[in-house]
Amino acid sequence: MNTEEMGEIDPDFITRLAGYLGFEKEKVQHLFEKNYLARNWGKHEHMLRFDKEISHIEHGTVLYEKGSSFEMIMGFPKIRRAMVLDPTLKKHFSGLEKVTVEEKMNGYNVRVAQVNGEILAITRSGYVCPYTTERAKEKLDLRFFDDFPELVLYGEMLGPDNPYVPKEIYGIESVEFYIFDIREKNSGNPLSIARKHEILEKYNLLQVQYFGEILLETAAEEIAKIIRALGEKEHEGVVIKDPEMTLTPLKYTSSQSNCSDLRHAFKFYNEAGRDYMLSRIVREGFQTVEWDENEAEFKKRFMQLGESILNPLKEAIQSVKNGQRLYEEVRIRVRDLKTATEFEDYLKRLGVDAIFEEPQPAGDEYLINIKKVNKSTNDKTQAIWEGELW
Amino acid sequence: MNTEEMGEIDPDFITRLAGYLGFEKEKVQHLFEKNYLARNWGKHEHMLRFDKEISHIEHGTVLYEKGSSFEMIMGFPKIRRAMVLDPTLKKHFSGLEKVTVEEKMNGYNVRVAQVNGEILAITRSGYVCPYTTERAKEKLDLRFFDDFPELVLYGEMLGPDNPYVPKEIYGIESVEFYIFDIREKNSGNPLSIARKHEILEKYNLLQVQYFGEILLETAAEEIAKIIRALGEKEHEGVVIKDPEMTLTPLKYTSSQSNCSDLRHAFKFYNEAGRDYMLSRIVREGFQTVEWDENEAEFKKRFMQLGESILNPLKEAIQSVKNGQRLYEEVRIRVRDLKTATEFEDYLKRLGVDAIFEEPQPAGDEYLINIKKVNKSTNDKTQAIWEGELW
Repeated sequence: MNTEEMGEIDPDFITRLAGYLGFEKEKVQHLFEKNYLARNWGKHEHMLRFDKEISHIEHGTVLYEKGSSFEMIMGFPKIRRAMVLDPTLKKHFSGLEKVTVEEKMNGYNVRVAQVNGEILAITRSGYVCPYTTERAKEKLDLRFFDDFPELVLYGEMLGPDNPYVPKEIYGIESVEFYIFDIREKNSGNPLSIARKHEILEKYNLLQVQYFGEILLETAAEEIAKIIRALGEKEHEGVVIKDPEMTLTPLKYTSSQSNCSDLRHAFKFYNEAGRDYMLSRIVREGFQTVEWDENEAEFKKRFMQLGESILNPLKEAIQSVKNGQRLYEEVRIRVRDLKTATEFEDYLKRLGVDAIFEEPQPAGDEYLINIKKVNKSTNDKTQAIWEGELW
Repeated sequence: MNTEEMGEIDPDFITRLAGYLGFEKEKVQHLFEKNYLARNWGKHEHMLRFDKEISHIEHGTVLYEKGSSFEMIMGFPKIRRAMVLDPTLKKHFSGLEKVTVEEKMNGYNVRVAQVNGEILAITRSGYVCPYTTERAKEKLDLRFFDDFPELVLYGEMLGPDNPYVPKEIYGIESVEFYIFDIREKNSGNPLSIARKHEILEKYNLLQVQYFGEILLETAAEEIAKIIRALGEKEHEGVVIKDPEMTLTPLKYTSSQSNCSDLRHAFKFYNEAGRDYMLSRIVREGFQTVEWDENEAEFKKRFMQLGESILNPLKEAIQSVKNGQRLYEEVRIRVRDLKTATEFEDYLKRLGVDAIFEEPQPAGDEYLINIKKVNKSTNDKTQAIWEGELW
């Protein structure tokens, strides 16, 4: 559903692309045939998307012609996870005196860049989302892209009008874009933390909360404190970075974030990945041991875990028993109703089963509620209520 | 590890076997090549084992030459699970007035049969276990096999001296064999419940607890009561059968059994199957909704769930942190020390990493403690404590 018939591909195009990527022509041909390199559609048909990680190129990387050559926007590098803070941080960042700690915010990953003169918001998988693009143009100081056409903003779309991961916890009224990295086009090289701050401040771009530089020696303790405080606010966790951005970052999350993921996963138990569920549970085990919790703390943790798993499961099963369909309710806010139509087409194209309700005027914008139907869990649960065996 | 080099297979043997199974010769050849049909080893090398379900033949079925033909002992038929009792029972058993309810006991599945004059205990996968065989000969009235050489006992080995699934809950001192089905060789056809009872009583063979015949109309309610009572004793659940054994049975289990499975699975979180874990969790969701539990009952359920998951996980992670290796401690009781040696070889052959301790005399028998090492979870957990990323 997310691939395009390529039809005939111009052999000259293949040759030029192979030259740009440093691949054999046959390899490029093969990538197209397998749809590992796929096209966006409609007015963004010219944008190619890596649907898999290929050699050093991240999944979600996009690529398009620019002048007589090409330009590439690298995907989001996968950030590896510390299961325990000590000794993992010391081992991973060995050689550094200090690490930088930033909040890992819980939203929708988006890259915003100027592509042949046009500002586009590109999703983690490399699609151009019409809604996110409209919001990004609304929210960001676009002079940044004129001054730095070779740079890309890597951030999170956050807030209740985010139709992918709606969250109220950040006190955002509609949606905002919080930036965590600035990277160069083509190479994907990140700017240092200092240079990133300087540029983001200049254009008044929002950035994820910055906890400063912390001595590596005491980082495990310090970060445990930060994580506990973030957890109390239901915030997700932190990303720990080399201030120069030479070594790759690590992430570490709060118990509340694990439980929140589990609440979502068990609501749609037949869709969610098994490994996704298990990994969040196992993190709780390592955290309680690393933090040397006493009996009362441990009891609180396992109760939260049990409730985070069983409550959404119970509610989903009960809803279906009562004859309701399982869906997720999300919302968008658009200036132009055309964006909503484009977004509806876009979701359909991605295979998302979504019902758009009537737009409600809100100031000079419109609010539109959307029901995303979870067909697989719905059908499975209903079949069980009708006497089907497991 | 559980397959044998077949070497050259006599073409005449293949032809005869194909004739017996009603398969093409090429198919039989293919089953051997793929090791879907594999040999046992040592003195049971003559016994073939279906390592996969092939056509109508269950996984674990064994097959051997008898006279100029063959004889087959069918594997354990997979019993499907009712996720909810109502309407599943009515749907599955429609046309019956009554169903039979028996306890599903939590032990190790074993078939005991006379194979060319010798009594053998055959595991679920079709191996001949030397320990189980010794115990079966010790515990069962062997006259049954002389009187009914064409019948096979399908049962559970239960008790603390069961090295596979040791359980104290049944009040068994060492091990006992509880029979749940009697089936014919070759066809695998089961005897009716009445005929089974008659034969088991005649030879004083133990049988799983019998809850009698229950009207299909009220079975869901009645079985819910039985399940609650069984759960209180930490017993597993029930199997619901057609008294004539024409329709296939269904199983349904207690919450305590789900939690007990989870406690075991999360102790060895890196070995246990993801689907195994998830299915036990999802059962809790359906049971709480079907039984329409109030807030207090629901809280008790999610606390038990949370504890059953997090406690073994914590203990395993803590043990490895303290420098201990993760193992499962089990025990066997043998009359002949040769059986212990054979069992040690047998486990090695199956790839189980087990340490046998010194035999301790116990009356005219010996008790031997065995540590089964859980290498995968052990190594993974240790690596994380050494700073490895997830």
